[in-house]
Amino acid sequence: MVERYALEPLKSLWTLKAQYERWLEVELAVVEAYEQVGVAPKGTSEEIRKKAVIDVDDILATEQVVDHDVIAFIKSVTKNMGDEARYFHYGLTSSDVVDTANSLALVRATDIILESMEKLSAVLYEKALQYKTLPTIGRTHGVHAEPTSFGLKFLSWYAELLRDIERLKNVREEIAVGKLSGAVGNYANISPEVERIALEKLGLKPTPVATQVISRDYIAHLLATFALIAGLIERIAIEIRHLQRTEVLEAMEPFKEGQRGSSAMPHKKNPILCERLTGMARLMRSYAQVAFENMALWHERDISHSSAERYILPDSTMTIYYMLEKARYLIGNLKVFEDKVKKNIDITQGLVYSQRILLALVEAGMSREEAYTLVQKYALECWETGESFKERVRSDEKVRQLITEEKFEELFRPDYYLRNIDKIYERFEKS
Amino acid sequence: MVERYALEPLKSLWTLKAQYERWLEVELAVVEAYEQVGVAPKGTSEEIRKKAVIDVDDILATEQVVDHDVIAFIKSVTKNMGDEARYFHYGLTSSDVVDTANSLALVRATDIILESMEKLSAVLYEKALQYKTLPTIGRTHGVHAEPTSFGLKFLSWYAELLRDIERLKNVREEIAVGKLSGAVGNYANISPEVERIALEKLGLKPTPVATQVISRDYIAHLLATFALIAGLIERIAIEIRHLQRTEVLEAMEPFKEGQRGSSAMPHKKNPILCERLTGMARLMRSYAQVAFENMALWHERDISHSSAERYILPDSTMTIYYMLEKARYLIGNLKVFEDKVKKNIDITQGLVYSQRILLALVEAGMSREEAYTLVQKYALECWETGESFKERVRSDEKVRQLITEEKFEELFRPDYYLRNIDKIYERFEKS
Amino acid sequence: MVERYALEPLKSLWTLKAQYERWLEVELAVVEAYEQVGVAPKGTSEEIRKKAVIDVDDILATEQVVDHDVIAFIKSVTKNMGDEARYFHYGLTSSDVVDTANSLALVRATDIILESMEKLSAVLYEKALQYKTLPTIGRTHGVHAEPTSFGLKFLSWYAELLRDIERLKNVREEIAVGKLSGAVGNYANISPEVERIALEKLGLKPTPVATQVISRDYIAHLLATFALIAGLIERIAIEIRHLQRTEVLEAMEPFKEGQRGSSAMPHKKNPILCERLTGMARLMRSYAQVAFENMALWHERDISHSSAERYILPDSTMTIYYMLEKARYLIGNLKVFEDKVKKNIDITQGLVYSQRILLALVEAGMSREEAYTLVQKYALECWETGESFKERVRSDEKVRQLITEEKFEELFRPDYYLRNIDKIYERFEKS
Amino acid sequence: MVERYALEPLKSLWTLKAQYERWLEVELAVVEAYEQVGVAPKGTSEEIRKKAVIDVDDILATEQVVDHDVIAFIKSVTKNMGDEARYFHYGLTSSDVVDTANSLALVRATDIILESMEKLSAVLYEKALQYKTLPTIGRTHGVHAEPTSFGLKFLSWYAELLRDIERLKNVREEIAVGKLSGAVGNYANISPEVERIALEKLGLKPTPVATQVISRDYIAHLLATFALIAGLIERIAIEIRHLQRTEVLEAMEPFKEGQRGSSAMPHKKNPILCERLTGMARLMRSYAQVAFENMALWHERDISHSSAERYILPDSTMTIYYMLEKARYLIGNLKVFEDKVKKNIDITQGLVYSQRILLALVEAGMSREEAYTLVQKYALECWETGESFKERVRSDEKVRQLITEEKFEELFRPDYYLRNIDKIYERFEKS
Repeated sequence: MVERYALEPLKSLWTLKAQYERWLEVELAVVEAYEQVGVAPKGTSEEIRKKAVIDVDDILATEQVVDHDVIAFIKSVTKNMGDEARYFHYGLTSSDVVDTANSLALVRATDIILESMEKLSAVLYEKALQYKTLPTIGRTHGVHAEPTSFGLKFLSWYAELLRDIERLKNVREEIAVGKLSGAVGNYANISPEVERIALEKLGLKPTPVATQVISRDYIAHLLATFALIAGLIERIAIEIRHLQRTEVLEAMEPFKEGQRGSSAMPHKKNPILCERLTGMARLMRSYAQVAFENMALWHERDISHSSAERYILPDSTMTIYYMLEKARYLIGNLKVFEDKVKKNIDITQGLVYSQRILLALVEAGMSREEAYTLVQKYALECWETGESFKERVRSDEKVRQLITEEKFEELFRPDYYLRNIDKIYERFEKS
Repeated sequence: MVERYALEPLKSLWTLKAQYERWLEVELAVVEAYEQVGVAPKGTSEEIRKKAVIDVDDILATEQVVDHDVIAFIKSVTKNMGDEARYFHYGLTSSDVVDTANSLALVRATDIILESMEKLSAVLYEKALQYKTLPTIGRTHGVHAEPTSFGLKFLSWYAELLRDIERLKNVREEIAVGKLSGAVGNYANISPEVERIALEKLGLKPTPVATQVISRDYIAHLLATFALIAGLIERIAIEIRHLQRTEVLEAMEPFKEGQRGSSAMPHKKNPILCERLTGMARLMRSYAQVAFENMALWHERDISHSSAERYILPDSTMTIYYMLEKARYLIGNLKVFEDKVKKNIDITQGLVYSQRILLALVEAGMSREEAYTLVQKYALECWETGESFKERVRSDEKVRQLITEEKFEELFRPDYYLRNIDKIYERFEKS
Repeated sequence: MVERYALEPLKSLWTLKAQYERWLEVELAVVEAYEQVGVAPKGTSEEIRKKAVIDVDDILATEQVVDHDVIAFIKSVTKNMGDEARYFHYGLTSSDVVDTANSLALVRATDIILESMEKLSAVLYEKALQYKTLPTIGRTHGVHAEPTSFGLKFLSWYAELLRDIERLKNVREEIAVGKLSGAVGNYANISPEVERIALEKLGLKPTPVATQVISRDYIAHLLATFALIAGLIERIAIEIRHLQRTEVLEAMEPFKEGQRGSSAMPHKKNPILCERLTGMARLMRSYAQVAFENMALWHERDISHSSAERYILPDSTMTIYYMLEKARYLIGNLKVFEDKVKKNIDITQGLVYSQRILLALVEAGMSREEAYTLVQKYALECWETGESFKERVRSDEKVRQLITEEKFEELFRPDYYLRNIDKIYERFEKS
Repeated sequence: MVERYALEPLKSLWTLKAQYERWLEVELAVVEAYEQVGVAPKGTSEEIRKKAVIDVDDILATEQVVDHDVIAFIKSVTKNMGDEARYFHYGLTSSDVVDTANSLALVRATDIILESMEKLSAVLYEKALQYKTLPTIGRTHGVHAEPTSFGLKFLSWYAELLRDIERLKNVREEIAVGKLSGAVGNYANISPEVERIALEKLGLKPTPVATQVISRDYIAHLLATFALIAGLIERIAIEIRHLQRTEVLEAMEPFKEGQRGSSAMPHKKNPILCERLTGMARLMRSYAQVAFENMALWHERDISHSSAERYILPDSTMTIYYMLEKARYLIGNLKVFEDKVKKNIDITQGLVYSQRILLALVEAGMSREEAYTLVQKYALECWETGESFKERVRSDEKVRQLITEEKFEELFRPDYYLRNIDKIYERFEKS
């Protein structure tokens, strides 16, 4: 992980120490289950809990010898134990511990990420409400299209985020599975009953059929969902980068007291946070790619997924969390220059109302083809010459015959485009 | 699309003609909605339906002039119409038609794909039942681990496929959205009411907030889900490729009458179908990657997603469908050599029962560490020398002290590993 | 392949007919080589050439029976032959033909692509010269930085394209390899001598060591190089999309007579070609990804690469060719609004000269820290208030003490930034 | 980076301290160049070198305030300096330092990686020679094809590695570029001469045209080349995983004294290193993907590449280095069970000689079609029944008529397939 992008509490979740603690948590849950079904004597788990020591350095030193991380862990953790050690890791295979603990980590990471998403959604909705009636120019292909509501940008992100929250909640339920079914998943030396009890203690359910490991489709689904979320944040970041362009300058990401934009150019205020998030979205996509490739393991498992997951599980969860936290900061502190937003609507001198003219002519009886040709002719001329489209059209004789002056003026007003905004917002209030 | 992999009915879904028909379907639904709310005179939609002609060549010729596919479509389709043409495409922007029709195509493709998945799941479950009690050697890392049930392989795939079906059903509901909200999604010249009515006729719901287009997260979610399904099929294909290896030869994909495996080597029977599916999984992952990149469009939309989608929407749906259909054929007609399956369990002369010995020694009072060291020592020797592990262990004095001869024999039997298989299967019968 | 993006001559290169013709070309070269070394009687190849018939439908029908494309090809092509058929495909395995013919196709495609790149480079250099002295505002982070030369944009692309040409030329030499070494690449039934002679006739060299196939690193290298080229075209396309933004409007992609930008908004002129190229770059990246995954084949080969290559070889070569051809059209016909280019330099009222002030103050004896703080203070104020930076700075007492009025005026002129442009261009004239 | 996979000397190359040291190295080279051209007084660089302090914590603390890493670096490093600080970072923009230092890091990393590749190639060639005459069964599609040389596997990897070395050497020359041309690459406040001198001191050349940054095609090319190398190592790893399969067991990766293969199954010796390398190849591909996406920066640069590069530059170089080092260990210490290699040739009881029979029949006058049909018939029967192919064919009357007993025996010998091996090896000895 890149140190500067590792935020708590996710950072602590992925330390080696935390990993060993989760392994112990799983081992203990199994011992408790054995007690409960009468295999292990009462008190065994308590005894083990007391005597278990997690000494990261000792575990790593042991791993140097045995070249197997779980065996090293068991050897080290149990070294102060007496006879109760017999029930430690009893009937289990390494992957029972690793994969179940892995699920715990991912579920916990996902819960933290979901919380961050909820907070971001609140901020987005707030901004959507705040700018609901602020008219702005809608842009398609980067070119002025027609006026719309500035708040709608936020509402659109909000709506997409709600979908992502829903998706991630589904995946969160999905991935809350463990497996304690032995070397090839057939409960050779442990019973489905013990698995069920132990996993319940951990807040997990048994995966319906395991091999030595839990199938990797769960993780691939999780990381693909993260890539979707990252795609939304990238979309937001790119919008703000556009709005902060010098020629547009309708909004600006927060610029801290004392911050410097450039070592050479003191005037610079750059959307560096948005750009950082954009780059991170590329990473998030690449993690999904690796997770997809990790799915087709050989026979009852091969361990090729493991090296890759040592990178992508911490990095993907920490990076998406960083992105969400920063997106909230970004949106919550976004500077919006409302005057500039309004002013930009008119820089084309009316071109953006071309459809209204077109439709008014059609309504007044002109054929669509004729109207399109007439309006396009003036419009394209005005792009080139910089003349006022409004005045050019107004001076056309046919137009004057078909459209009254009063009506004409009305066609060049942005509020028309906000008529139905309330209805769009209402959909969210209802739900 | 690669001709040889294009199967009906999906192939027909993606012809240019079918696309124009869907566009017309959307345009007509909107006219009907306008009739319903009283904007268009009664009978308009019927009139339009009668006079609309889809002439693919004419549309393409028109596109050469206007350089815009939807405008070309409108011009061509309406050319025989009279005054009712006024209500054709009325208040709409191109993307209203394209994106809504796109959703129709994807929903229909997904329904076909889901049906194929259901059929595949039935075949997988059938095979899972058929081979439930056939013992086989479980392999981890490609190395013999412990005996298990041959049917469990199928059950594991079945369980994963059930998850994929569930996922795809969710996505199918998700993507069943359209948008008829105009140039920048603010219902400038159409009402949310008309949108709602028209979409309902098409079996779709309005996307909560649109820009000029429907947000691309839907498609990315769909293609990521396809990549998950492809990952499962790859997993199945790789298993069978392994089982068909000459040294293993426990199963074989169907080999048709008259088929030839090699132009040079008449003896060859190759798992070419499985290999083909493996290669296709790589494609499916790559489509998801493109779809993720397509998400962050500029402002109220840019059209960069469009060229990419012209490739990946037909190719991804057709390829995953091909994979599913072929997987069903493959599994349904898989040759399993049961004798060989059983025989392979014993090629290590008992090594695969090492854990049973280990646990028996622990139960008999030996410490886990001591038992592991003892058993590993014999096991590793036998890998090298090819001697019988069973006999080597039997000859160990400590072992003889701790384990009776009767018990010893029992430790080297595969049925022990099938004890809990019923319980695994029961989970599915209940659900 | 997407019909609308398939351009000649590449389109014809990838028809099934053209593929069979290449297979025949390889088979014939081998027969000629056999003649040359005295294995086949003189005249055999001529006889075969005369009697060989490529009947696509017949080959496909035969494939339905034998389920093997090369065997079907041999059966069909040789059906009119007499005894000479004995030397057709003699000593070869299917992959000898397929892979060698594949190399022919890729080499030929690459030559066409290289030619297109050369043409594009000429157009880029021409534009670089044309706009060499046109001052424009350089933008970093989308924010005005400092003036620079408009021509430098083109020169930067030109320089990158020269690198890409060099790279692709290297790869073109690399991939010009064939293999005619039999089923597992050990020349069991053919000699290295025959391979050498036959390949030389085809303009290829033997790959140093083959398995059944040519190693897939060649193709992966080729497709990765295409992805690099696509990345450059994407970079160009995105620049023009930015320049065509309504607020910037310094350049515009060609808009054809009769073209329509939007079905709803007659005023629209959108950079649709640039957006199309942007989307295609995503595809080109995804092809490289598949090609990387295709490398690790099992043992002496598995055929998993084949299904994937049926998509990605035609699609990648055709798409990159389309991109290059369209990029040349785009650049060659780009509209540049020179007045607007110049005008945009000043929209910040001097802010972009902040570094010049900073350095002038440092030269005049102020410490860098102090100067930075002073200049930044005014600059950030002016961003907010919209006041003229030039006037604000001018009114500062310290500034007036350190910088004369004459010098001050000079600091706010764009030509300073073009001082070294000649030297940059000279590098290319020399080379 | 994942701690356990970070090997020296690459690990040290990527510490924050090392990065700051490289930045200082660049800054000093520029000051020296200024001295050389007479801009800075003699002795300035020496003075700066003496007083410059790299205090990582202080730099990071400063960055908290200014939110800009290079500015923080300058502030901190120069704090003990007097007037000479004036020439520190003089005329430069941050990216001049960052990107040039970045090139230094990548060039140095690449040199280390190349050295590791050379060492691996020596080991591969050694093994190729060692096993040159060991016959083994060639496998295509995982199915026995025909005998070949075991050494040829290594020679094939060796040949591919030589290509990769050549490719990486080319890229290494390519990426050895810096840029010291100011905020938008036009040498506003520095001269091409100073750039040339300073870069020469650093062993770099100027990139022909820079924006604010060096174009990202260089890095994308580097990471794509790493992905090619990773693809080869994956190919090697997968071969060994196959050879170590229990049913095949022709080779085994080194198993250390004291190592344990499984916590549950003491008999396990798993190819975990090969599997680890397989997983890492997926990562290497994903880094290339990110690097491709990083290419299309906005205008004269945006900084979106930066966050992504903070992950992928250290991780890709460290991971490929780890892969190469481990691959050398793996190959150098590979256990090959020669007896088993030979024995496996015969497990099909002669089926693998089917082509020899086919060709012998053709040579003896039978048509290819007839011969293929005859041989295939027996071959397919024997796959099913397990009968000896050799005996089945021998008993065929036609065969007996056409092939003498002596000749027949000779057709079933592996040495035939090694006839041309010397010639393949000679290609390398010559070059």
